[in-house]
Parts: sequence; structure tokens; C-alpha cells
Amino acid sequence: MCSALPFVVGPGMRRDGTTRFRDSQGEPLHDFLAVSSFSQYTVVDVNQVVKVDPAVPPKLACLLGCGAGTGVGAAWRLAKVQPGSSVVIFGLGAVGLSVAQGAKMCGAAKIIGVDLNPDKEELGKKFGVTDFVNPSKLGESPLSQVIIEMTGGGADYCFECIGVASVMTEAFRSAKQGNGKTVILGLEKDGKPISLPSIEFLFGKCVMGSLFGGIKPKTDIPILAKKCMSKELELEKLITHEVGLQEINTAFDLLLQGKSLRCIIWMDKLAA
Amino acid sequence: MCSALPFVVGPGMRRDGTTRFRDSQGEPLHDFLAVSSFSQYTVVDVNQVVKVDPAVPPKLACLLGCGAGTGVGAAWRLAKVQPGSSVVIFGLGAVGLSVAQGAKMCGAAKIIGVDLNPDKEELGKKFGVTDFVNPSKLGESPLSQVIIEMTGGGADYCFECIGVASVMTEAFRSAKQGNGKTVILGLEKDGKPISLPSIEFLFGKCVMGSLFGGIKPKTDIPILAKKCMSKELELEKLITHEVGLQEINTAFDLLLQGKSLRCIIWMDKLAA
Repeated sequence: MCSALPFVVGPGMRRDGTTRFRDSQGEPLHDFLAVSSFSQYTVVDVNQVVKVDPAVPPKLACLLGCGAGTGVGAAWRLAKVQPGSSVVIFGLGAVGLSVAQGAKMCGAAKIIGVDLNPDKEELGKKFGVTDFVNPSKLGESPLSQVIIEMTGGGADYCFECIGVASVMTEAFRSAKQGNGKTVILGLEKDGKPISLPSIEFLFGKCVMGSLFGGIKPKTDIPILAKKCMSKELELEKLITHEVGLQEINTAFDLLLQGKSLRCIIWMDKLAA
Repeated sequence: MCSALPFVVGPGMRRDGTTRFRDSQGEPLHDFLAVSSFSQYTVVDVNQVVKVDPAVPPKLACLLGCGAGTGVGAAWRLAKVQPGSSVVIFGLGAVGLSVAQGAKMCGAAKIIGVDLNPDKEELGKKFGVTDFVNPSKLGESPLSQVIIEMTGGGADYCFECIGVASVMTEAFRSAKQGNGKTVILGLEKDGKPISLPSIEFLFGKCVMGSLFGGIKPKTDIPILAKKCMSKELELEKLITHEVGLQEINTAFDLLLQGKSLRCIIWMDKLAA
């Protein structure tokens, strides 16, 4: 969070609310979050630009944005996952799978993935998930109780990557008494508050959130890009589809249907 | 939190549940939390003993336990208050006033005390509180809104030192978007859960608890004792009363009436 240029959803560039774009009728056109652009050239504030080694393919570099960058960053920079520790990830979408990659990179010994979709068990393994729990198959046992048993007293780190208040509560309950950290990455879909058992704070638990996984983009994105190039991070496995700009609506349909993790939209196919 | 010797309220010593004490009928007698003792000699587990420089008067050393040690530690070790930062303390009892001492020691620029008792304004100043808010005198303005205005966007650190779920929520709301830390020191008196607006985690807030303010007793208590001796910490100002053991019930009455912050009970007045 830059205090000089506060985060705003929009409209307009952060510094002065203006835009450099016009539509075909000459009306001002704003880009979302003052960064995104489906164009071959763009203008963004210098504060929002990160230089990446030209050797990094754009297809890889573009993954280090909001979702995957946040997931890896949350394990690496925010939670600071320690070697040999236990990690639980609630929700194995692109963010959750990126958390798994970040946790693996940090040397976590046990990475438990939690998802209602049974297909995520096999998928998770490709990203470093070592154990899988399907909450729909637990019968009477509360999810947090199962996690506490699997980790011998609670996980060192719990990541909520869905956006459901009740799952946030379960994540907090699943964390180890003493110094278990719970990280909230999901954006609560109904805007509900999180309810947390206050007594558990007494024993030293903490709950944290982050914008962009706590990474400092100018210094950390180049580091992550290098780790992608050396295959220490394999975020390219998130790419399930690639389309040209004229197929952008197909890309959104795949996203809404839960069929894509990451879809690359190629701007150079604009004229195709 | 020691994983080898877990924290237990009792009864019995942590290692094996036994006791070294008998009452006058020969029945086993346990000490609370396996540490406290109103006796001239005692037996506690070696893990729970901290050696303090003999130059430190017992009257000072005994303050560095649960309450004052937790308060100072929470600012110093847990929240890691930075020089020039803003701190809000909800509840100026012995714990809250100790947080003020810890925050002052860490170089906080603004230390806002919040209490319903108007007498706490003058008292707070003696411990480093720079600004005072009485929530009963705010009219229609929500407390967190007032704090956000006073701190120009929210406080860097908020400490809840009362034990009321709704105050915990207000503390979280009063913390700065981005990296505002909320520390829960109060033990919720009715066991109610804490309700937190989930959206605020997205911008990087965190909530943390601790047992004993996150200090490591064996290394940190001697450091704090030295700071008390050099007057960098003035915790002795917490001592409002001193009595002999035979007046222990008077000491508890003063506590229940809210008239004492810390009452020293002198064991050597046992035979008086």
C-alpha cells in the first residue's frame, strides 16, 4: 500500500484521476485498477511499472500479477513459511495453487489442499500439495478438527483462498495454538464479517491479510520471474487456455464455468 | 508457548501434574497456573524460573509478570512498535498503561488512550499517553471514525486491553489500512466471538494475540528489569497499594472496586 499514491479501484489514474485513452466517440475511457489494458500500447503511472528481464517470456511475466503473484507472495513474504512447517490451503484455484508453489519454494514439509472438487487432488500434486481433504467426505467431523489431527495440533499456516466467511473461521480454528498464522486471501463474496473465537487469540494466533501477498513489486517481481525461469516456480502450469483478443468473451465464459485457471489473451492476434 | 511443556491452567505442575504442597490436613494443594504462590518459599518447574539480577528490588521484579510484562512485551516484541508511529490503547488499566510504557520505550510519536473513566486522562500522561479519548463524550461519532481522524487515516497499532468483543472490532476498524496491526490482549469476558469486517483484511491489516506479549521470559525479563532500573520503564508507578499477607482480602477488594492497579503483597509481613 503506497501512502503517496493510494490504491483506488478507479476511475482514473491514481495520481490525478485522468486517463490517456478515448473511445471511438472521443469520450474518456478508463482502465480498471489503473493498470489493466487490452491494448498493444498503454500508459500507466511510473509507480506501477516494474522492469522485468527481457529474457522472461511475456506469457510467464504476465502471471506474476494479482492472482499468482499474490499466492506465492503470501506464502513467501507475508506468512514467511518456514522450512519443515505445515501449510493448509483452503481452495485450490489459481491463487491457492500459487500458495502451494510458494510454500513448496519455502520448504514446507506438509502442504494440505482442501477443496470440494475431487479433480483438485491430482491437480494439486502438480503444484506441491502433499495431502488432500475433501470437506464433503468428512461426515460428522468438523474440518478444523480433521486438520488439527492431520498436523498434530494445528497447522503452522492456513490460507483462505475462496472468500467465504465460514471457511475463514475454519481456517483460523485449524491453525496451531501458539503461533499459527491464518492468511485471508479470499474476498468475502457477500461482504459478511468474519467471526473468530476470541479466546484463541490469547494463545498467540494471528490473522493477516494483504494486498498482493505482501510483496514489494519493484524488487520482488524480478526475483519471482527469475525463479520461474529456473523452474523453482512452475506457475506456467496454471495456463489452461490461450486465445486471441477476438476470443476474449470465450475466455470469460471459461472463467465463469470454472474451466480455466489462467487464460492467456494474446494481443498480437488482434489483427487476426 | 512451549510445546514440550504446554500451558495449562492447572491443577498441578506442568510436567507431571503433581504438587509439592500439602494443606494443614495433608491434602494436596496446587498453585494457580503452576507458578503463583503466596509463600516465602516455593517449588516451580525449572522451565518457569527466570534469573533476575539480585540488584533488582523484588517489588520491581514482581511487576514483570503476567500483566505489566504482557503490556510492555506486546508493544515491544509482538507488535514491534516503530519510532514515530501512532498507537491507540483501548482501556487504561495496568495492562493498557504498560502498553503505553512499552510504546513510549519504542519511540511512538502519538499514544492515544481510550477509557470511559475520566480520571484515566491524567493517569495516562504519567505513563506516556499523549492524547485521551472518552468514548462516552463522542456523541454520534463512532469511536473508530474519531481515531481515524486523529491519526490521519488510522493508527499504526491498536491494542485492546479490556476484553469486550465490540471494542476488539472497533480497535480493528481504527487501524490503518495497509499495515495497521491490532493486538488483542483482553480476554473476552463473556467468551463472545470477535466479528471483523473481512474486506479490511484485503488491504493488509492484521490481528494478533499473544501469551505474555510475545516475550521470551528467560532472555527478555532480565532486559526489562534493566530498563526498569534505568527508569526507561517506570512500571513502579503502577503500584497503588502495599499490604502484608494478612491483608490479602483487602487487596482483592481494592482490585474488584477498581481502586488499585497493582498491589504489592509483602510475604515478609507474614508474621506481623
